[in-house]
Amino acid sequence: MADPVTTSPAPVRSPDQAAARAAPAPEPARRPRVVIVGGGFAGLHAVRRLHRAPVDITLLDRTNHHLFQPLLYQVATAMLAPSDVAVPIRWLMRRYPNVRTVLGNVTGVDVERRCVLVDDLPTPLRYDYLILATGARHSYFGHDDWERIAPGLKGLEDALAIRRRFLLAFERAELTTDPAELEALMTFVVVGGGPTGVELAGILPDTACNAFRRDFRNVDTRDTRVILLEGGPRLLPAFDERLSARALEDLRRLGVDARVNSIVTRVEPDAVYLGDQRIATRNVLWAAGNSASPLGRMLGTPVDRAGRVLVEPDLSVPGHPEVFVAGDLAAAHWRGSKAPGKTVPGVAPAAMQMGRRVGENVQHLVRGEPTEAFEYRNKGDLATIGRNHAIADFGRVRLSGFVAWVLWLFVHLMYLVGFRNRVSVFLQWAYAYFTFQRGVRLITETEEELMCEPDRVPVAHSP
Amino acid sequence: MADPVTTSPAPVRSPDQAAARAAPAPEPARRPRVVIVGGGFAGLHAVRRLHRAPVDITLLDRTNHHLFQPLLYQVATAMLAPSDVAVPIRWLMRRYPNVRTVLGNVTGVDVERRCVLVDDLPTPLRYDYLILATGARHSYFGHDDWERIAPGLKGLEDALAIRRRFLLAFERAELTTDPAELEALMTFVVVGGGPTGVELAGILPDTACNAFRRDFRNVDTRDTRVILLEGGPRLLPAFDERLSARALEDLRRLGVDARVNSIVTRVEPDAVYLGDQRIATRNVLWAAGNSASPLGRMLGTPVDRAGRVLVEPDLSVPGHPEVFVAGDLAAAHWRGSKAPGKTVPGVAPAAMQMGRRVGENVQHLVRGEPTEAFEYRNKGDLATIGRNHAIADFGRVRLSGFVAWVLWLFVHLMYLVGFRNRVSVFLQWAYAYFTFQRGVRLITETEEELMCEPDRVPVAHSP
Repeated sequence: MADPVTTSPAPVRSPDQAAARAAPAPEPARRPRVVIVGGGFAGLHAVRRLHRAPVDITLLDRTNHHLFQPLLYQVATAMLAPSDVAVPIRWLMRRYPNVRTVLGNVTGVDVERRCVLVDDLPTPLRYDYLILATGARHSYFGHDDWERIAPGLKGLEDALAIRRRFLLAFERAELTTDPAELEALMTFVVVGGGPTGVELAGILPDTACNAFRRDFRNVDTRDTRVILLEGGPRLLPAFDERLSARALEDLRRLGVDARVNSIVTRVEPDAVYLGDQRIATRNVLWAAGNSASPLGRMLGTPVDRAGRVLVEPDLSVPGHPEVFVAGDLAAAHWRGSKAPGKTVPGVAPAAMQMGRRVGENVQHLVRGEPTEAFEYRNKGDLATIGRNHAIADFGRVRLSGFVAWVLWLFVHLMYLVGFRNRVSVFLQWAYAYFTFQRGVRLITETEEELMCEPDRVPVAHSP
Repeated sequence: MADPVTTSPAPVRSPDQAAARAAPAPEPARRPRVVIVGGGFAGLHAVRRLHRAPVDITLLDRTNHHLFQPLLYQVATAMLAPSDVAVPIRWLMRRYPNVRTVLGNVTGVDVERRCVLVDDLPTPLRYDYLILATGARHSYFGHDDWERIAPGLKGLEDALAIRRRFLLAFERAELTTDPAELEALMTFVVVGGGPTGVELAGILPDTACNAFRRDFRNVDTRDTRVILLEGGPRLLPAFDERLSARALEDLRRLGVDARVNSIVTRVEPDAVYLGDQRIATRNVLWAAGNSASPLGRMLGTPVDRAGRVLVEPDLSVPGHPEVFVAGDLAAAHWRGSKAPGKTVPGVAPAAMQMGRRVGENVQHLVRGEPTEAFEYRNKGDLATIGRNHAIADFGRVRLSGFVAWVLWLFVHLMYLVGFRNRVSVFLQWAYAYFTFQRGVRLITETEEELMCEPDRVPVAHSP
C-alpha cells in the first residue's frame, strides 16, 4: 500500500499571495491540501463546508469519535451511555470521498514549512491550508496537581472516570463504619458555576435521592450533600443577571448548597478549602476555568491568558492567512456584543459558527477571493437545572421552568449528531424521566485499577 | 452508622445437623445468614429462590453489575453497548429487603470458622450457609503469558479491551505503509471453537465488510481475514455432530477460515503458531479452555483439572453440607446424559438451574428438610453464525438457518435481565440489521494508555 501522506505530489502555488510566499516550486494540477486538527464541533462544521470543494482534506483527531460535549455530564452521572453522545468521526466522513480521517496525536506544527507532525505518521503531514480546532480543557489555575483529585469533564474518559467515582462513593459509603468517612463520601463538591457546573450540580440530587434510594441498606442516599462553588459574583456569568439569580434559586430549591464568591484555595483527596474553611469531601468535580489546547502555543503567535490564539477578524493567524483557528482554541473578538473587546464565548454554537466560517474562508482563498470576517450570532443560552426545569435567554425573550426545559430537550436532540444517537438519547431520557432510574450504572475497570486507586477509601477497623 | 457486618448477633444453632456441628453457642432468634459470592446467572437465581425465605442474604461481587455473558461478544465487536448487557446487581436487589449487596473482592474462605474474607470489609463475613458461584475464565493451558496478547472474553473489561484492539487494528491498517504489517493487522485469529469462538468468528466478517467498508480510504476492509482455530476434531463439541458440520460449513460460507484439529503451540504479539506453521496476526482473540475461579481451591476440597469443585449430588461440598457451589465453578455430574460420568456443561442455562437448586436446598436445610439432588435439564443448544443464521439443537428437534436465527434472537431477548436492556438490545439489533452499521464504535482510553500499549504498532518510516 502506498504511503497515504507522501503519495500526492508536492504543493503548487496557491491562489492567495500570502500562502504563496513560502510555497515550494509550482507543479502540475494538484488539489490544495487542507489539514483540519480536531473533530469537535468546529472541525466537523469546517469539513461540512469544504467536502464539496476541490480540496483534499485530512481530518485529524486524538480520539476516533466526535463528542457531543453538552450532554457529557449526563454520561458522568450514569444517565446516558458513552455511545449516546459520541459518534465515530470516520463514520461521519464516510460519504465525503475527499476527506481522509486519521486517528493520531499532533505533536507539532511548523507554520513556516507548512506541515503538521503526527505521532503515528511516518512523515510530516504537509498542508496548504491548516485549520486548528483542538478546543480547551478546564483550568486548575496553576494547580495542575488538583486534576488527579478533582477530574474535569471534557472527554469521554473524564466522564467515565467521574461516573466511576460517583458510583463508587455510594458503594463505599454503604460499607464504611466511620461517620466522618461517610459524610465525606456523601458530599459532592462541584467547582465552577458555568453551564457545566450548574447542570452537573442540578442532576446529582435527583440521581442520588430518586435513582439510588431503594438500592442501599445502610446508607440513606437522601443524605447526599451537593455543594456548588462559583468564584465569581454570580452563576452562569454569560447569561442575563435575572437568569443567574433564578438558577441560584432553582439549585437551592433542589437542595444544592450553591455559593458564589467562593474561591477554592486548596484541594485534597478528602477535603476542599475556601480559605480556612474546610469542606470534608471525597468527591470534587471540576468545571471551572478554561485552558486552551497546547497546540495554540505551537503556532508561535500571540495567545491570551487562557492560551487561546488571538486571531484576525477572519479567524486566521496573524502573518499566516493560510492558518485558521476555530472553536474554544480561538480568542475571537465579539463584534455583535455591546461590551467592546469581549471575546466570543466557548460554547458549542460559537464553535459551529467558527467552523463554518473558516471552512468558507478556505474556499474563498482557494478561489482567490478575499476572506470574510467572523460574526458571532448568539442564538441564546440554555441550561437545565434538575428535572422539569431549565432557563433560557434569547436576548429579548427569557424563559425559565418547564417550557424552557422542554425547549432544552428539543434543542439538544436536534443538534445531536446521528439519528441512532437521537433515538437512543430520547429513549434513555424517557426511561430516566418516567422510572426515576438511571440506565448506565456501570463501574468498569479492572480489579487492579480499583485496588491501586490513589484515593482508595481506607477501611475503618472496628474494635 | 453501625457496622453492617458485626451488628447482627452471633450465630445460633441452625436446624440442619451438619451445619450445627461447628456452630457457636445458641442465642435467641436470629435469621440464618446466607452469603452468596458471585452475581452471575447462578448467584442471581439462587437469590431469587431465597429472597422470601427467613434468611439474611449478603450478595458479594467484584463488579457492581450482573453480566449477560452470552451477548458479550457483541459488545466486543461494537454492536452493543456495555450497558445493554449489564445491570447493576444492587438495582436488581432493590425489592429484596433481606438482601444486602456488597461490592468487594473475596480474598479467602474459611469453611471451618464459617467466614469469608472480603478486602473492603473490616471484619470477616460470617455465614451459616455459603453459596459460591464465581464462575470461570478461559484457560491458556499453562501459558498465562499469552493472555496479555490474546485477551479472553469473560468480563466487561475483556470485551472493551477486545473492542479497542478490534477498532484500532483498522485505524492502524489505514496508516501503515508496510504490506506485511497491513496483513497482520487485517488478520483476526479466534482460538477456540465453542459457542463463543464460533459466534465471535461469525460476526467479524459482516462487521468488517459491511459496517466498516465505506469508512476507510487506504484499506479495503473486505480483505479482512478471519481464522477460527479449534484444537478438537469438530466445532461446538457440545452440539450434535451434524450441527457441528453445519456450523463449519456456514462459517466457511461467510469466508471464515475455520480449522479443526488445530492446536495453538505459541502466541506472539505479531503471530500465532500451529506447530511450525506461522500465522502473521496482530489480533488473537481467546475463547478456548476453561479455568475455574481460584475460590474453588480455597475450600480445600477436591477439584478437577479445570479447578472446578467436585460437588455432591445436591451441589454441596463434600463434608460441608452448608457450603454449596453453583455455575461454572461446579463440576456436577450430569445424570440426564447418556454418557456416564459426563459433567454438566458450563453454559448459562445450567448455571441458572444450579442456582435455583442451591437456593432451594438452602431453604430445605433452614426448614430442617433433606436436600434434593441436582438434575440438569438440557433445554437445547443455540449458536448464531453471522447474519440471518443460527443453529439449534433441542435433542429431538434440530434447526438451522433463518428460523433458528429468529429463535436465537427471541431466546436471548427473553433471558436478558431488565426491560430497559431488552428494548435497547432490540433496537441496537434492528439498527445493525437494517443499516449494516455498528452503533458503538468507540475507542475509549486515555492517550497515555494508547501510547504505552505493549503491542503498539511500530511506525514504518518511508525512505
